[in-house]
Amino acid sequence: VAHPRLSLNQWTTRRWSLTDAIDGCARHGIRGIGVWREKLAELPAAEARLRVDDAGLTVTSLCRGGFLSDPRTHTTALDDNRRALDEAVAIGTDQLVLVMGGLPDGSLDLAAARAAARDGLEALVPYAVDAGVRLALEPLHPMYAADRSVLSTLNQAIDWAQPFAASAVGVCIDTFHVWWDPDVDSAIAEVASAGRLATFQVCDFLVPLPADVLLGRGYMGDGVIDFEALTRAVAAAGYDGFVEVEIFNADVWADDPDTVCAMVCDRFDRLVAPYL
Amino acid sequence: VAHPRLSLNQWTTRRWSLTDAIDGCARHGIRGIGVWREKLAELPAAEARLRVDDAGLTVTSLCRGGFLSDPRTHTTALDDNRRALDEAVAIGTDQLVLVMGGLPDGSLDLAAARAAARDGLEALVPYAVDAGVRLALEPLHPMYAADRSVLSTLNQAIDWAQPFAASAVGVCIDTFHVWWDPDVDSAIAEVASAGRLATFQVCDFLVPLPADVLLGRGYMGDGVIDFEALTRAVAAAGYDGFVEVEIFNADVWADDPDTVCAMVCDRFDRLVAPYL
Repeated sequence: VAHPRLSLNQWTTRRWSLTDAIDGCARHGIRGIGVWREKLAELPAAEARLRVDDAGLTVTSLCRGGFLSDPRTHTTALDDNRRALDEAVAIGTDQLVLVMGGLPDGSLDLAAARAAARDGLEALVPYAVDAGVRLALEPLHPMYAADRSVLSTLNQAIDWAQPFAASAVGVCIDTFHVWWDPDVDSAIAEVASAGRLATFQVCDFLVPLPADVLLGRGYMGDGVIDFEALTRAVAAAGYDGFVEVEIFNADVWADDPDTVCAMVCDRFDRLVAPYL
Repeated sequence: VAHPRLSLNQWTTRRWSLTDAIDGCARHGIRGIGVWREKLAELPAAEARLRVDDAGLTVTSLCRGGFLSDPRTHTTALDDNRRALDEAVAIGTDQLVLVMGGLPDGSLDLAAARAAARDGLEALVPYAVDAGVRLALEPLHPMYAADRSVLSTLNQAIDWAQPFAASAVGVCIDTFHVWWDPDVDSAIAEVASAGRLATFQVCDFLVPLPADVLLGRGYMGDGVIDFEALTRAVAAAGYDGFVEVEIFNADVWADDPDTVCAMVCDRFDRLVAPYL
């Protein structure tokens, strides 16, 4: 049976519908699930909520909002983020993960994109507070700075979160994105001491990266990340929540999702759980 | 004719021998060259030195030493680095670029690899000082942290250089590796104010990255880097030396090197030179 703090981020078993994933979690004894909006949209949110509750599952986060780095699309993006917050409430999670977006098309102005993303965050916070859902800023690996996230490091996330209450804006720490950072230990401690450690996501960093670098994630143990060190840092910072396993990988997606769940549980038990 | 501060890093015209590259620089009016050890090994160093001097070329750096992150191979690596320093003296440059190395095979211990690299640097400094050659620490993009360089950011390079004289240990700033860094402006200023800005290298960051992420570099203007912003930052910091163009790209390498030189000169004139 799965470790009680393991949560399956459902992009790991991307072939499964939300209903399939809920049933799969039950079969494997997994108690938490990170839900994606694309999957939640497959059925009425109230029905999804009932199924999640019936299975005794905790929805550890909703993925994802954000993409606020282009001022030309702010209005549309903010509308979409408010819908995402509504969906978070509907599915019963208090955390929405935000990927902030990259450089706007045709722009090289990183400072402007960062300013726009921060403005967008500020505009979104009141709605999030009213909804009782925390916005979890996820810094992405610097190799995605242009096309996915102008928010690249934990220290930057700490800066961006600082103007807001810890209950309104937190930080999502994903090992894939932060493992290389020379400041990762101090940043984890600072995120946690500010009360902002919203979610901890794990997966490995593969070397060499595949042709599509977005899919360079692997099962824990298949890459170069020291899960003992990072898990100990998160545990030492006092984190006692769920740990989501989120793997973007073409081979994992092609595999039978039940096989994937079994692998996730096994690797989690051996490489993460001992240090929680 | 090429801008007087343009230097051709010879890996950009990788098909050329050193002799070819020297002649090519003369044809294009390029006054500086960044020499690679693999190319220098093709002929006696004294002969290479004569050819460089006859062409009126400045050797702006020798690439490269380093790979000191594995304590098991320190002895061999230090011997090789001392040879590299001898070669720098022989070809008449006072700067050796160091790529520090990644995780040792089978290890996930980033802290240990960083400590080993710093130990190796410390062991190498006295020989470099005697040789009159500065060691230029080059932080590489975090996507290479496991397989190329556990030194990933300019702030980290500042830390590593700090125990040594500025004349002994400098920092190599390559736009490809540092453009994404939220601290890049302050780090450039700090490197320069410490007297450690050893070399400035330019090339663009391509999106999407190619299948081999080592070759994700392009001509200035072909990717996502704001050369105006970075060049202004380097100029404002007082840097008045050569600017090396170093492009690792399969298409560039396949092209006629004279065509490549013409492109390099043109893009440099338009995207870098105005802000120097």
